[in-house]
Amino acid sequence: MAPTEIREISRSKASGGYVVKFEHDSPLSRCSMKFSVFVPPGYEKKNSKKYPILYWLSGLTCNEDNFMQKAGGKDKLAELGIVLVCPDTSPRGLGIEGEDDSWDLGTGAGFYVDATVEKWNGYNMYSYITQELWEVVNSNFNVDPSRAGIFGHSMGGHGAIVSGLRNPDKYKSVSAFAPIANPIDCPWGKKSLGAYLGTDNQEAWKVYDSTEVMKAYNGPSRTILVDQGTADNFLKEQLQTEKVAKVGNARVKVELRMQDGYDHSYFFISTFINDHLGFHAEKLKA
Amino acid sequence: MAPTEIREISRSKASGGYVVKFEHDSPLSRCSMKFSVFVPPGYEKKNSKKYPILYWLSGLTCNEDNFMQKAGGKDKLAELGIVLVCPDTSPRGLGIEGEDDSWDLGTGAGFYVDATVEKWNGYNMYSYITQELWEVVNSNFNVDPSRAGIFGHSMGGHGAIVSGLRNPDKYKSVSAFAPIANPIDCPWGKKSLGAYLGTDNQEAWKVYDSTEVMKAYNGPSRTILVDQGTADNFLKEQLQTEKVAKVGNARVKVELRMQDGYDHSYFFISTFINDHLGFHAEKLKA
Repeated sequence: MAPTEIREISRSKASGGYVVKFEHDSPLSRCSMKFSVFVPPGYEKKNSKKYPILYWLSGLTCNEDNFMQKAGGKDKLAELGIVLVCPDTSPRGLGIEGEDDSWDLGTGAGFYVDATVEKWNGYNMYSYITQELWEVVNSNFNVDPSRAGIFGHSMGGHGAIVSGLRNPDKYKSVSAFAPIANPIDCPWGKKSLGAYLGTDNQEAWKVYDSTEVMKAYNGPSRTILVDQGTADNFLKEQLQTEKVAKVGNARVKVELRMQDGYDHSYFFISTFINDHLGFHAEKLKA
Repeated sequence: MAPTEIREISRSKASGGYVVKFEHDSPLSRCSMKFSVFVPPGYEKKNSKKYPILYWLSGLTCNEDNFMQKAGGKDKLAELGIVLVCPDTSPRGLGIEGEDDSWDLGTGAGFYVDATVEKWNGYNMYSYITQELWEVVNSNFNVDPSRAGIFGHSMGGHGAIVSGLRNPDKYKSVSAFAPIANPIDCPWGKKSLGAYLGTDNQEAWKVYDSTEVMKAYNGPSRTILVDQGTADNFLKEQLQTEKVAKVGNARVKVELRMQDGYDHSYFFISTFINDHLGFHAEKLKA
């Protein structure tokens, strides 16, 4: 049975609602995991109204704070009446050799995969997001699991597309900012997938690759909104965002918007966050 | 002659405009000083239109980044066509004994005063803001110095009220979030003013005290917008914000809004930033 007890760490009023940080024991992650939640004005844990919910997956080096502090969008979330959850991006403090040696592997860089290499025991961010956190949130918040969406940035954009399309019964709307579109074919992806999944069977990497997951997708029809800055230094070598727009699977359409002059920072995200919130709200009937 | 050469450190597109960070040699501060600027969409250094300008003064521990990353408001600045400048909060790296020992004195805590105690030579944030930075900005940006406003948060709210009212010819609009309203009578203020100005002549502290400056104010009529969260842990002992609303000088009216349940964080600022930008825009005819 999934653990459901959560402990409140901090709470700040924002845009009429609250940003609240929690931690909980995560058997899957072998540590305590933190997440932040925005609840809109008037939110009560127990009342008849159930709120639509959005999951935001952050990028490399981030934790549960980055979106809440830098992305903006809280006025819009308040207006739309949506609950938004920001998990951390990896387990922390597991004591694995090398976990803190580089910013693109280990701590802060879980890559939203379930590690199969024994060394990374506890790095199960794919199942943490799609199962454990899903249960923790549904059992602790007044949300409607039938109206859930997922989105994210960079590593988290990759995580959102993969998690969303592999679980269309859970996530009814998907969008991404500057996702790592084809990790099996870029340096960040090869490093992470090689470490967490091993290099012997690279076929096994494909279930964690947005482009490959989109090719294989045969669920209900989906349109995914993707924003990408043209001045993003990671675009060409790492993100290769255009690849998700070229898959050609009729069941999953990508609305790719190349945003002139924007880079990879949260300044880019904050500029277009309201568009994404509106996109999800329409799909989730928020 | 004031130094005017500035060097661009970084640039990110945001809300159709740009967040740009600069540094410049500051003889007054005895070091290189950084500041960030938001320029709205269409801003060009050389064209016929001159932009109104806002100065944001940050609080203890902050630097030139905090407002840009966390306060929001850039969509509104873009809409209003205002240039906004965020300076750092102190000189850095002067090698003064104890400058990095505490978060509320020295580095990140210049308190917007000109130090008279020899030890703090270089800590001249009052003159840095109102003279040196003023010149640097006016000579490097396409702004209209006759339409300048100033605002800030906490220590920066104090700095904005003091700088604004002591220089009404420069700053035509003033507002504050949770200002340190009466530093001569609170622990943060006594510590800073005592260190930078010495404790022998505490009368000299009054020119850096919002409440005292308001009492003595005899310039053109001003209305100052002040927002204060009721759940701000610093309100009672440090900020004492209600004091600026009780001065009773007919020339300077304070519109104090007590915001129910908000704390001292940037979540509070981001909630009400657009109100402040609208307030300044009206005064500056932006």
